[in-house]
Amino acid sequence: MSRTFICSNTEPIVETKAGKLRGYKIDGTYAFHGIKYADAKRFQMPTEVQPWDGVKEATSYGYVSPLLKQEQPSGEILVPHRYWPMDENCQYLNIWTQSIDKNAKKPILVWLHGGGFSAGSSIEQVAYDGENMSKFGDVVVVSINHRLNILGYLDLSPFGGKYKNSGNAGNADMVAALKWIQDNIENFGGDPDNVTIFGQSGGGMKVWTLMQTPEADGLFHKGIIQSGLIDGFVATGKVDGTEIVKALLNELGYGEGEVEKLETIPYPLLAEVYNKVSEKLAIEGHYVGCTPIQNDFYVGDPRVVGFTEHAKTIPIMIGTVFAEFPAFGPGIADKEKLSSEQIEELITKRYGEHSEKLIALFKETYPEKNLTDLLFLDSLFRAPSIDFIAKKAEHQESPTYSYLFSLEFPYDGGRTAWHCSEIPFVFRNTDKVAVCNIPGVSDLLEKQMFDAWISFAKNGTPSSNDLPEWPACKPGDEATMIFDRTCEVRRNYDHELIALHSSVEPSFESIVKNEDIQH
Amino acid sequence: MSRTFICSNTEPIVETKAGKLRGYKIDGTYAFHGIKYADAKRFQMPTEVQPWDGVKEATSYGYVSPLLKQEQPSGEILVPHRYWPMDENCQYLNIWTQSIDKNAKKPILVWLHGGGFSAGSSIEQVAYDGENMSKFGDVVVVSINHRLNILGYLDLSPFGGKYKNSGNAGNADMVAALKWIQDNIENFGGDPDNVTIFGQSGGGMKVWTLMQTPEADGLFHKGIIQSGLIDGFVATGKVDGTEIVKALLNELGYGEGEVEKLETIPYPLLAEVYNKVSEKLAIEGHYVGCTPIQNDFYVGDPRVVGFTEHAKTIPIMIGTVFAEFPAFGPGIADKEKLSSEQIEELITKRYGEHSEKLIALFKETYPEKNLTDLLFLDSLFRAPSIDFIAKKAEHQESPTYSYLFSLEFPYDGGRTAWHCSEIPFVFRNTDKVAVCNIPGVSDLLEKQMFDAWISFAKNGTPSSNDLPEWPACKPGDEATMIFDRTCEVRRNYDHELIALHSSVEPSFESIVKNEDIQH
Repeated sequence: MSRTFICSNTEPIVETKAGKLRGYKIDGTYAFHGIKYADAKRFQMPTEVQPWDGVKEATSYGYVSPLLKQEQPSGEILVPHRYWPMDENCQYLNIWTQSIDKNAKKPILVWLHGGGFSAGSSIEQVAYDGENMSKFGDVVVVSINHRLNILGYLDLSPFGGKYKNSGNAGNADMVAALKWIQDNIENFGGDPDNVTIFGQSGGGMKVWTLMQTPEADGLFHKGIIQSGLIDGFVATGKVDGTEIVKALLNELGYGEGEVEKLETIPYPLLAEVYNKVSEKLAIEGHYVGCTPIQNDFYVGDPRVVGFTEHAKTIPIMIGTVFAEFPAFGPGIADKEKLSSEQIEELITKRYGEHSEKLIALFKETYPEKNLTDLLFLDSLFRAPSIDFIAKKAEHQESPTYSYLFSLEFPYDGGRTAWHCSEIPFVFRNTDKVAVCNIPGVSDLLEKQMFDAWISFAKNGTPSSNDLPEWPACKPGDEATMIFDRTCEVRRNYDHELIALHSSVEPSFESIVKNEDIQH
Repeated sequence: MSRTFICSNTEPIVETKAGKLRGYKIDGTYAFHGIKYADAKRFQMPTEVQPWDGVKEATSYGYVSPLLKQEQPSGEILVPHRYWPMDENCQYLNIWTQSIDKNAKKPILVWLHGGGFSAGSSIEQVAYDGENMSKFGDVVVVSINHRLNILGYLDLSPFGGKYKNSGNAGNADMVAALKWIQDNIENFGGDPDNVTIFGQSGGGMKVWTLMQTPEADGLFHKGIIQSGLIDGFVATGKVDGTEIVKALLNELGYGEGEVEKLETIPYPLLAEVYNKVSEKLAIEGHYVGCTPIQNDFYVGDPRVVGFTEHAKTIPIMIGTVFAEFPAFGPGIADKEKLSSEQIEELITKRYGEHSEKLIALFKETYPEKNLTDLLFLDSLFRAPSIDFIAKKAEHQESPTYSYLFSLEFPYDGGRTAWHCSEIPFVFRNTDKVAVCNIPGVSDLLEKQMFDAWISFAKNGTPSSNDLPEWPACKPGDEATMIFDRTCEVRRNYDHELIALHSSVEPSFESIVKNEDIQH
């Protein structure tokens, strides 16, 4: 049935600090796409956009950050994508809102996309569309593009003071976006005093790195970390870009005094040279950029350096999904038809002497699951998440809520939740992602999860009429909401399994190819 | 509400000549995306794909052809886009169907995308999604990628017999896709004896160039040309690539004997050099490629060389939209509030001495329209379409149906149909394109148009229970279905207006920027 569309020369027009913007309205939802929130020169900190006269159009998504390598189309059943034109000049954000009354003061959710710190965009996944979240949650949804990979995170600081924070330029863009929100969001019906940042994978890492970024203190008030921790992904401790930048200069035939040339050479050349030299350096154990670095701007991993005073006050929801990356590999055909012996043989082949104990723990932890699912269990994300939760829960000045998403999807004879698979549920976009359609199951689960996320954004407590009560974690007591066909809260339910699993699991590199980490 | 999703290790799997493919099924619709229908070396004719063992995945759209220049995000309200990873190896097609029973024999619609012969892809526009068309029309929908611009249409024939048809490589890809359909579509529930090719803009040009391509005779049976004629866009008569290729070689520092180097240099370099040298040559009046050339493969514009015997037998539906490219420029604010004097002043400023006659003809032709719409009237597409219709109608061995889409959209105070704006209606995808939502209007119009397209594909006669009778054109008698809030058939209704308008309209180049032609 037709909806009501409005985009005229008089509405919807919203005043921002720099000038007027026109978006459009579809039924009750206003959309403003491709709003420039900052400008930046390569390797430099972002600056405010220049004011303009008249009305600027905000109805097309803005450029996304260029990538190091072109994406390859694959896996669209699991994670449907949207690609978009790329340019370094990529500081754009999108807004969906139910009101443009400055007194409306609706809660704000700011989506930080995944793709490590190297790939992705605010619209990369079909599931990132903010219309349903805004409409059914009555909230303001913002999603942002920012600089990625060497554009966002190449540390040139050893080569001159002007590059002081180039190793965090991408995160600095996010801070600029959060400042833009503080300055302007009231006119889009939002409450600048109720900002929740949320993100998945790299987006989850963006949440906790921003928690540890003093310049972002006060710019957001809650955080949701979805599958957002991998040990070692963001460098721990002090590192710098000396080796990688030397290698770049050398490969380009530039002297060490010519580092400024990196500011102007075409990005495709810079990316090509980086791809050529970085792999060898990484294998040798050198820092090669493409993730934030610890300095005055970003003070370091809270699990290592401790939570900042500000971070201690931030209510957090944090969780992972059952099978994360292992689910992207080939599945097991007709798993329901395998005998116990056949399954145990597969498991023993992988885990050898640890199999018996792992099987026992798995059966205890996931009594409803097929035992072959053990072969797809994630601990790469879950183990550091357990650690994060434990450490955050020591600071009872703000709550920490834990979840695990363990739904089995009707794909390939039953595939348990892969990396990104919870996103359509969170955004209430399962209608846009075919594989999420499970009659009698997915509609309710979507409502349960969506309500919890919205409730958390509204008042810091995840709840839903359709969910059991969800307590915050306490020291030594992780209360985890299991999102599945039946949702329930369990306590420290998988710690023993994950501890053993993460100690015996073959290395991450041997399970998935490196590029898979970009999701 | 949840739908039913199936994608298992046993279904849906379809056998093709080269091997098995797995797609997915959502509710009643099967989807197979990214099927490789041919392989090709640069500048060479496509060849059949190599057979494979096992089951190949067909659930992700395939690479699209690289473009000469990166797209810029803009105009998403008018034409929402989908971009996709690019590679020369781009011979992929997509299928949506209601059955995979080889006895089902449903009519087939093959979508040829627009973007001249230089840009676009099978999924470039959100409105190109084939699910609704297949589902509500009970037809098999196929959309294809093929080589574009210099990859698809650089004539190197003066430089060696091995390049004999490089100037039509993109069209040869389409012929290969049509052959693939003949060989394989029965297993996807399609009737290879009932294939309708349809396309808009460049896609419409693809329809009539394929009508004039003997190798495609018998591979399709009907055609729909949507906004698919511009005089001079496809070269008329014999041209060749001597000048453009010499200029490329010269710019690259290669001798004329080194043309083979163009086969292997990276595409971005080839595109960069082409962009540099082609503009000057084009201004000088030289053929610079990027459209089909007349030779044994493509025998030439039917309006110039006459229809081939095969083309004469092809039922055709052909039409344009009211405002095509002029609608992309700035609109006129509050046009309803302008006085007659103000409007006539605007018109006189543009058309001088011809204004009075134009105004009189416009009022007669479009009595319901606001007179300012005259400033947005298209004749660039409509004039050659009238010519095409007249010449095709001389061959009464097959019918020719004419239409004009003149809906005013609720954008910017009322914007009349722009280039591409009919596509969501044709695909029954107005739910995916916000600007198409006009309560009380768009649902019915969508049904009327969709039914007509489907009826034409099924039996060669466009009809709908909700439309007046739509007769075929006869010599000197163009019966045109006007698609608008009220649909009606009118005869030769705008010929006088268009004849005058096209003779006095400022040149195409002066109205729109060149890149707009890519839509």
